[in-house]
Amino acid sequence: MSVWWRGRVLAGDEPSLAIDRGLLLGDGLFETVHVRDGVAEFLDRHMARLRGSTSALGVPLPAELATTIAEALPRLVVAAGSPPRGALRITATRGTGRGLAPTPTDGGLVLSFDALPDAPRAEPAPAWDATVVDVPRVDPRDPLARHKVLSRMARVEARRTALAAGADVALLVTIDGDVVEGDAANLFVVLGREIVTPPLDRGVLAGITRARCLEAAARRGRTVVERRVELGELADADEALLTSSLDGVRPLRRVGARSLAAPGEAAAWLARCIDLDARDDGRPE
Amino acid sequence: MSVWWRGRVLAGDEPSLAIDRGLLLGDGLFETVHVRDGVAEFLDRHMARLRGSTSALGVPLPAELATTIAEALPRLVVAAGSPPRGALRITATRGTGRGLAPTPTDGGLVLSFDALPDAPRAEPAPAWDATVVDVPRVDPRDPLARHKVLSRMARVEARRTALAAGADVALLVTIDGDVVEGDAANLFVVLGREIVTPPLDRGVLAGITRARCLEAAARRGRTVVERRVELGELADADEALLTSSLDGVRPLRRVGARSLAAPGEAAAWLARCIDLDARDDGRPE
Repeated sequence: MSVWWRGRVLAGDEPSLAIDRGLLLGDGLFETVHVRDGVAEFLDRHMARLRGSTSALGVPLPAELATTIAEALPRLVVAAGSPPRGALRITATRGTGRGLAPTPTDGGLVLSFDALPDAPRAEPAPAWDATVVDVPRVDPRDPLARHKVLSRMARVEARRTALAAGADVALLVTIDGDVVEGDAANLFVVLGREIVTPPLDRGVLAGITRARCLEAAARRGRTVVERRVELGELADADEALLTSSLDGVRPLRRVGARSLAAPGEAAAWLARCIDLDARDDGRPE
Repeated sequence: MSVWWRGRVLAGDEPSLAIDRGLLLGDGLFETVHVRDGVAEFLDRHMARLRGSTSALGVPLPAELATTIAEALPRLVVAAGSPPRGALRITATRGTGRGLAPTPTDGGLVLSFDALPDAPRAEPAPAWDATVVDVPRVDPRDPLARHKVLSRMARVEARRTALAAGADVALLVTIDGDVVEGDAANLFVVLGREIVTPPLDRGVLAGITRARCLEAAARRGRTVVERRVELGELADADEALLTSSLDGVRPLRRVGARSLAAPGEAAAWLARCIDLDARDDGRPE
């Protein structure tokens, strides 16, 4: 991992953050941006989401963040050995101060970069096995459920539960029992002829790849229905897939005991469509 | 704040942690220990709770932690100007690594210390106004609810909601609607002649001051009942108080629109009892 902090690139485990509320309380927000050939993809969308969340939750964010990223990214990529793919992490915290009550600060900002293995465009990522976990249960009324907050240990525990069960990833349900997303990705399921994804008001993160899939389908006259997905429906799904910035479209080969087509028709089609649209849009944005 | 990291005391905002899962994911645990005249109070109990939680959640903790604290604490206190009171924060993370799935690491450990204003012994802390917040709702089935995890942004939001409503502290309810604790403290209420506190299986942290109050009352033949407290009962309470390591016993002057005796008889009595017992037990432990 290479790290940018206060205007310079740090070595691997060089200390890089004063103790702040991001560490002490998980009090902050983040974005994980896919980087290909040194280019941060859909950075405008990530920045818009981050600005929306920091503004909603009162977390400071430097006005010159885009400039900082433009300056830091090439140096972070070089420091990581110029890999073909990588993950840029933007971590924005509420700054320093003890106790729950925030004190006015400038906030904390760290940029970090990890190399990722190369992967072909326009194809789904390798399929994963998923399992539905019992906890944590998403509370649709909790405003934090819709923001990419640093407080993610419940998601870590969900992933650990899935790994212990022999799966690769956890699917989360709400306190009302409907299934909403993966532990770090949005969920789409194919039910009969319909592609369905849970709506944001179920406590779902407004994923950037999720939005790109909805747009790509709409542009081609194919409807993706945003509606609540009951656990029983998931058990009857013909196909299921996860979407995220780093993975793009990732088919699910199993959900619990049920085997699914992976990649199925929808996964292959969505992966192709969002890649085409990114090229049409003159990626990089 | 003074900070101990990897064997030395750092200056105020000197960078003090390599980017790790504590910051990136709120993936770790902490303890906040009351320090009076340089002595960490009830440190054995804090260490036992921390070891229980790290063990339950698979977070690494150095075997020589007690030795490290014994070495670091006097230097942290001096670096902070040797105040009469302070807060020692033990922050233990799952170490480095990208993504939700943990990789085996040695974990991360930071000790930090903040001065606190002096306060008399054997007396309740100044009374606070509380308000019941709607979110986050505690899920009693979530195992993380009972551990002091770094992922605490939902608690920060609860506190921000309370402050915006003109109160000092938030009281949290479960998804089932019973009231369970403060945003950073345990809750006791007096209902008629009964002192009541919500049981741990409602998703309540096993507070050290909470346990000391239960022990102090039992030793004197006065029962504190551990049972579920409904919101409607809170509205009828004669007295209510919070307990925590830093505050000891803190009476609530108001809960929502209702005014309460502050300190009431129970708060004054519990504050006196736990101080007496600490002296009898030869504090410091």
